[in-house]
Amino acid sequence: MENFIFQNPTKLIFGKGMIAQLSKEIPEGKRVMLTFGGGSVKKNGVYEQVKEALKGFDVVEFWGIEANPKIETLRKAIQLGKEKKVDFLLAVGGGSVIDGTKLISAGLMYEGDAWELVLKGSFRHTVPLGAVLTLPATGSEMNSGAVISRSETAEKYPFYSNYPVFSVLDPTVTFSLPVYQVACGIADTFVHVMEQYMTVPGQSRLMDRWAEGILHSLIEIAPEIIQHQDNYDKMADFMLCATMGLNGFIALGVRQDWATHMIGHELTALHDLTHGATLAIVLPGLLRTLKEKKRAKLLQYGERVWGITGNSEEDRIEKAIACTEDFFKSLGLPTRLGDVQIGEETIKEIERRFTERKVGYGEDQDVTGTVARQILENCK
Amino acid sequence: MENFIFQNPTKLIFGKGMIAQLSKEIPEGKRVMLTFGGGSVKKNGVYEQVKEALKGFDVVEFWGIEANPKIETLRKAIQLGKEKKVDFLLAVGGGSVIDGTKLISAGLMYEGDAWELVLKGSFRHTVPLGAVLTLPATGSEMNSGAVISRSETAEKYPFYSNYPVFSVLDPTVTFSLPVYQVACGIADTFVHVMEQYMTVPGQSRLMDRWAEGILHSLIEIAPEIIQHQDNYDKMADFMLCATMGLNGFIALGVRQDWATHMIGHELTALHDLTHGATLAIVLPGLLRTLKEKKRAKLLQYGERVWGITGNSEEDRIEKAIACTEDFFKSLGLPTRLGDVQIGEETIKEIERRFTERKVGYGEDQDVTGTVARQILENCK
Repeated sequence: MENFIFQNPTKLIFGKGMIAQLSKEIPEGKRVMLTFGGGSVKKNGVYEQVKEALKGFDVVEFWGIEANPKIETLRKAIQLGKEKKVDFLLAVGGGSVIDGTKLISAGLMYEGDAWELVLKGSFRHTVPLGAVLTLPATGSEMNSGAVISRSETAEKYPFYSNYPVFSVLDPTVTFSLPVYQVACGIADTFVHVMEQYMTVPGQSRLMDRWAEGILHSLIEIAPEIIQHQDNYDKMADFMLCATMGLNGFIALGVRQDWATHMIGHELTALHDLTHGATLAIVLPGLLRTLKEKKRAKLLQYGERVWGITGNSEEDRIEKAIACTEDFFKSLGLPTRLGDVQIGEETIKEIERRFTERKVGYGEDQDVTGTVARQILENCK
Repeated sequence: MENFIFQNPTKLIFGKGMIAQLSKEIPEGKRVMLTFGGGSVKKNGVYEQVKEALKGFDVVEFWGIEANPKIETLRKAIQLGKEKKVDFLLAVGGGSVIDGTKLISAGLMYEGDAWELVLKGSFRHTVPLGAVLTLPATGSEMNSGAVISRSETAEKYPFYSNYPVFSVLDPTVTFSLPVYQVACGIADTFVHVMEQYMTVPGQSRLMDRWAEGILHSLIEIAPEIIQHQDNYDKMADFMLCATMGLNGFIALGVRQDWATHMIGHELTALHDLTHGATLAIVLPGLLRTLKEKKRAKLLQYGERVWGITGNSEEDRIEKAIACTEDFFKSLGLPTRLGDVQIGEETIKEIERRFTERKVGYGEDQDVTGTVARQILENCK
């Protein structure tokens, strides 16, 4: 096991009716900016519950943080927050709203343009933020990461700042989510776990088991929640899996990959494809490309998660990868570049970007531009 | 899943050589009281490493916190700490030292006798404390609980105060532990998990998987670390399992039992038996007694943890309980009251105490004095 330092201070407030707890969690006298995406929170009752809970607070609203939150939008929120002297942020929405609000939180304490913070990669001087999660997927409600996009240059980068002080997770608010968003959330969670798990076995027995535990749970609940989003217990399971999939709890002392995400971010940046859908395309292709390197872990994954035994090791590895792709297909997601009409031009551009950055991704930093091309060709 | 609120602020500093990080974690200018058990930390090099890391700090030492820390000892530490105006505590030892230091931490802020705090059950006004763990077992390094004993009345009660600000876990410091202590630590961890898991299935798929993940890991590593405590990777796995077994991570939204612990505490209070050994005796007896109530979970446990399938449900349940007892036996621990010469007199006294307290333990508060007697008779 590798040495590690772990701390996650976020207070998780989980369950039906828990939005009402908000008033206890925000210190009295704070000037609160509420941040939202589109209008779905007005349809599902979340907006009303939040406003009711915040009676007595001095509140400013900022609407319109889009999926893959854009610096162009967030600059406006930062300007508004500075004008109104906001000193607490409450993100009400999915991972994009929370991610965007993390940049606002840092931007409020920064004199220059907030895109500089994204390029810098991290900034710890922040305004405190809480969250009310409406879409389980990114884990942003209990980690310090965010991913921010820039329209004019079709760029998308991760950024690290502050953990939410608290996050409220009420599974009933997810009952009205569109099926496609639930599917993308399941895929996103699945791949978050795989990024932390699919390297080499035996670094930590416990982390392997816990990662496999999330994968098992997702595989069990997916068929039901794709059909009926109003199954409380299964949506609660999903919500908990999504949060636990990227809050550090399964990353203790183990190496991590994240190449699937780095390639997926490019597909989103270039084609505005939903994040979860990009991962469903890239992960199977990455596993096909790197199956020798990840051989031992793929065998463990196949046996423990999918129950694949017998036959030759080659067969078992092929089956494990096929099960993964079939799982994404069962969610109704695309799993090939052809499914979303992406071809050589994009592959070329991603290869060029990776090569130009002179960095390698993956647990050994060996996913260079050339390897990214091989992976994308294996996604055709 | 039940509603829950979760937050665990402890910073975990894990790995070889990490004791040297101490100086970064204690704020400058603090008057630090170091608390210790016996002299083992002087033999294994931990004391020297701690002193080296704390050069420049104003340090007071308190020695002699015993296994099952006693109020009589802790009163002395509180008196010393008040005299020296201590404002930071660093517990260096196993769960007993950390537990005792939690009471010291509360006692330093309290005017009356510290036993009043134990009877009160919790106290949140505390001096900050850190820990250097030397014996994986209790999980005290990453939770807010402690168990305190009183010699004169042979009593032992749980108490809740503050989470350690940080805990340093270096697996190499466990290499010189006596085999019996490792065995008791494994049993303690195993039973902590069972207390949170062995109720009813399906409250949370993920929590079930994570609990089973710790049990699997313990079963895999136990044969090796009982023989060779200097296997770094396996001791690191054990250390992580022990911490994760009682830091709240596997308790999200699920009901808990804890009757085994409440009965075990009485055995320790009355006979000074090591905590882990009491649990190895009580748990199998409790499962034999409550097997109808816990039927569905016992079947899941048998299948997932021990691979028990086929035959009748009765057979599978009997096998699951037998596997549990055999596991404790394989650690060299007693699993029956007769093994430790405890008989009717003790059973009678525990029945009397539970009945007198007018409380029931277990997930349904139905482990009364009468049920405790049945359990103990099933431990004969």
